[in-house]
Amino acid sequence: MARGDPNYKLTYFDLRGLSEPVRYLFAYAKVEYDDNRIKREDWPAMKKDMPFRTLPVLEVDGQTIGQSKAIGRFLAKRFNLVGQDDIEQARVDALVDYLEDVKHAGVGLMTLFREQDEKKKQEMKDQFFGETLPDYMDVLEQHLRSNNGGKGFFVGSGPTWADFAVAVFMDALDKFQPGFLSKYPLLSAHKARVEDLKGTKEWIAKRPKTVM
Amino acid sequence: MARGDPNYKLTYFDLRGLSEPVRYLFAYAKVEYDDNRIKREDWPAMKKDMPFRTLPVLEVDGQTIGQSKAIGRFLAKRFNLVGQDDIEQARVDALVDYLEDVKHAGVGLMTLFREQDEKKKQEMKDQFFGETLPDYMDVLEQHLRSNNGGKGFFVGSGPTWADFAVAVFMDALDKFQPGFLSKYPLLSAHKARVEDLKGTKEWIAKRPKTVM
Repeated sequence: MARGDPNYKLTYFDLRGLSEPVRYLFAYAKVEYDDNRIKREDWPAMKKDMPFRTLPVLEVDGQTIGQSKAIGRFLAKRFNLVGQDDIEQARVDALVDYLEDVKHAGVGLMTLFREQDEKKKQEMKDQFFGETLPDYMDVLEQHLRSNNGGKGFFVGSGPTWADFAVAVFMDALDKFQPGFLSKYPLLSAHKARVEDLKGTKEWIAKRPKTVM
Repeated sequence: MARGDPNYKLTYFDLRGLSEPVRYLFAYAKVEYDDNRIKREDWPAMKKDMPFRTLPVLEVDGQTIGQSKAIGRFLAKRFNLVGQDDIEQARVDALVDYLEDVKHAGVGLMTLFREQDEKKKQEMKDQFFGETLPDYMDVLEQHLRSNNGGKGFFVGSGPTWADFAVAVFMDALDKFQPGFLSKYPLLSAHKARVEDLKGTKEWIAKRPKTVM
């Protein structure tokens, strides 16, 4: 880190989760940061001092920023990964926000995660992945197809932070329901493309192995 | 509208809902637009042509932007209502995204809206407004308090689109559970402040009367 460079500290749990698109941003931009992974048992005491009582937070030169998408956009602007004009930027923002629609579609992904009864959980998963998600996946593939015929990234000619957000999300879906992503060739290829970028590739190879 | 000004068309249902913060933006910035309110029965035929099969969408000079927050940020940038530097912009973005946390807290606001059994609905409402929301309201009031002692807006010295988003959201909460907002003096006063701004005030006086 050169003298005078901003000092970035990302605090989150020892998980990919909401922070992984941010870590891809740092990796792709080759910007150093403190990847601060706290223990679950330390969280209750910290919680009240966080801007929204949630993680992740990003500290940058004494300022604290909360909310994963706000952090992502903030860094993406600094690293020139938000889109080249205001229309592209709006498209990028819209894709990132659409992932929230996907998460909350049907019974909602968090309800699935939290369900303790294994039989009920499998039924809910089958419904979510089999009936709820396909329409959303089609929308995402349409967006990919309409830009360079699906051979590149979501918006414009190079990667933006929307590509990182979608690729991380697809990875999580595919881990949660193994084989699911293989039904969506454009999204599968896109994920592979993001994971093969210089910077993200090295990060993925060396990142901590976590449960999710 | 002067010759060469962009041509804005906002399409949504005949509701405040997700579009009202965008309408506040146009009103406050005194920018003309086509406030296109479609009939429910016309929606199924239009749906497949929308970028995310959802409304609102904003058309601007032949381009279509989906997702309400992406639309809001796009216009707020053009109207200089996003915050004065990248830290302020991240704070504004974070507040807007936090409203999603609030919507999805506990059983979730949409679950309440959709519940048909009146007795069950009232029980769920009592729990949501009485037990789930207070922590979130406290967070928002803390943010207000930390900027000009709660006597102004959320970020910086003037209004940003986060103020519009929060004020519209508080209005919806207070209509859904009448009297709720009066327990939160800073948020109540903030809502009144936003609704008294030149531009938004005139809009609120003349806007169509809708169910929500």
